[in-house]
Amino acid sequence: MSDKMQQIVLASRPDGAPTQDNFRLETADIPTPGEGEILVEVSHMSLDPYMRGRMDDAKSYAAPVPVGGKMEGGSVGRVLASNSPLFKEGDHVFGMFGWATHSTADARMCRKLDPDQAPVTTALGVLGMPGFTGWWGFNEYGRPKEGETLAVAAATGPVGSMVGQLAKAKGLRAVGIAGGADKCKLATEEFGFDACVDHRAHSDFKSLRAAMKEAAPDGIDVYFENVGGPVLEAAISLMNPFGRIPLCGMIAWYNAGGLGADAAQEGLTAPKLWRTILVNFLSVNGFIISNHWDRYPDFVNEVAPMLKDGRVKYKEDITDGLENAPQAFMDLLTGGNHGKAIVKVK
Amino acid sequence: MSDKMQQIVLASRPDGAPTQDNFRLETADIPTPGEGEILVEVSHMSLDPYMRGRMDDAKSYAAPVPVGGKMEGGSVGRVLASNSPLFKEGDHVFGMFGWATHSTADARMCRKLDPDQAPVTTALGVLGMPGFTGWWGFNEYGRPKEGETLAVAAATGPVGSMVGQLAKAKGLRAVGIAGGADKCKLATEEFGFDACVDHRAHSDFKSLRAAMKEAAPDGIDVYFENVGGPVLEAAISLMNPFGRIPLCGMIAWYNAGGLGADAAQEGLTAPKLWRTILVNFLSVNGFIISNHWDRYPDFVNEVAPMLKDGRVKYKEDITDGLENAPQAFMDLLTGGNHGKAIVKVK
Repeated sequence: MSDKMQQIVLASRPDGAPTQDNFRLETADIPTPGEGEILVEVSHMSLDPYMRGRMDDAKSYAAPVPVGGKMEGGSVGRVLASNSPLFKEGDHVFGMFGWATHSTADARMCRKLDPDQAPVTTALGVLGMPGFTGWWGFNEYGRPKEGETLAVAAATGPVGSMVGQLAKAKGLRAVGIAGGADKCKLATEEFGFDACVDHRAHSDFKSLRAAMKEAAPDGIDVYFENVGGPVLEAAISLMNPFGRIPLCGMIAWYNAGGLGADAAQEGLTAPKLWRTILVNFLSVNGFIISNHWDRYPDFVNEVAPMLKDGRVKYKEDITDGLENAPQAFMDLLTGGNHGKAIVKVK
Repeated sequence: MSDKMQQIVLASRPDGAPTQDNFRLETADIPTPGEGEILVEVSHMSLDPYMRGRMDDAKSYAAPVPVGGKMEGGSVGRVLASNSPLFKEGDHVFGMFGWATHSTADARMCRKLDPDQAPVTTALGVLGMPGFTGWWGFNEYGRPKEGETLAVAAATGPVGSMVGQLAKAKGLRAVGIAGGADKCKLATEEFGFDACVDHRAHSDFKSLRAAMKEAAPDGIDVYFENVGGPVLEAAISLMNPFGRIPLCGMIAWYNAGGLGADAAQEGLTAPKLWRTILVNFLSVNGFIISNHWDRYPDFVNEVAPMLKDGRVKYKEDITDGLENAPQAFMDLLTGGNHGKAIVKVK
């Protein structure tokens, strides 16, 4: 085994959409695990929209990645060496190992995986942070009731597809929004959405809104918000009284920098948004799933069986090679992926 | 008794702030109560910010007042004639009798008042819709915890003063925002707020925000939103993680018409607002108290004793004469009143 590893660091902060220049592939020595730590060889790493936020130096739920620092992220791999009774060599493990081929980590912050329960890559998607995000937000803040209508954007992504499938399982009408006819086909045929609106087929807002209204003829009761932008604006305008909006991300706005100019163009001003919340008695809850890991076992207990028996399906989009992670990440931010974005590191 | 009554109708829809031209005083025949109805002689009527919304032809939680129609509103008075077993002549009564000296009403929609429990005018304010609004929003969506900080604008108004006093009673720090040094004095000396920021003393946003930050050094956990505008923007920027924002009105924005231009000036764009909700895990709940009257008895049972023993105080600003209601209402919208705005009709 070589004593060298590779990692990708933040070379510079992006101005708007990230470019290759913002990333740098580096070679480093494989670190030695300290007391209570494990050394992991990463097999697959996750790419998620939230990582875009970490690249900025703005106030958010987590500290930004420092310039020159390793890009953060969740990964799965095998334990190469363990200085903790919690793991032994060869164990499959999930942890926040970052964009790297190897990493040490506090064993208490890692989770052992059982490859017989589900493929280990599911710990990055359907049974990991994205799936858990969908499950928690939908149930806790969505408060779904049979017969209602759920709408979710990025419908074929790991969050959206989880939310849509849970909605169907609970007897709601599930309306997806996705970019492209192929994704919409995936949403309805694979994930069981009742309807899916291709937002790329609607260049103007009016047409997008009309299509969403047709897909949700009784209005929207739960809008699971993970995208922002014009889709949010259209959804907001279709909310039924007492509607609920779990809010876990705004991919369309992550690149907006000052987050101002876009909105003015779209016409969704703060007072208009605020007034809509008021006059429709909406409930809007922002959350990040990392505050709620205490409920993770409940999630797995409910969803793992649904995965086994096919009630919940998932799709992965796997890119080969750590060096290709920046491009795959940029594709993710513009909707170029089909399914959960994963990089095969080894 | 004359068989004529007076009432104020909506002469035209306002363009921005209402003017005298938007109202018209009319004389009409006193109506005869139908089956199940009562005829009421109004003694006092309420003026409330929500009435501004009813003057517009925009989608809101209630139908607009038609042009030429009687202005809506809650009033108290005495029963002159009853065709219902629920009331007898001489009873004190609260109902939605509108801007008028007399009105008939479905007896089932009216509430009998006991003048020995509290002065009947309290049914318009501290023990009526505004007080109930404050109590419900603060408890249900504010989820207050001892030691936290509550902020509320229009702190000396009937909603704000209720919220502030309930916060103090529950062991929170209560920060008020009000327009003018005299109102701030009233907030701290009469209603017991720990601090009160005079927003009129701060012509620029930065200075307003700094004053609010000084008044809420540990940040804001519950922002009871009933005003909108720059105060909201400042409050939003001071929210602690997991903060709660009950949202029941936006007086500063009621006159904004298209509700766009103002916000752009203030810099609070929709994406910025949305992002703040997300990254601070805020809970925002729009509500109107008329959906929650089932809890009104709980409110009265809790607050009426606090009123009796002085733990909750209230202040009324009474204008004499129905014909002066439009001016008093315009004053209310620009903060000219001190305490609950009431018009003495008879």
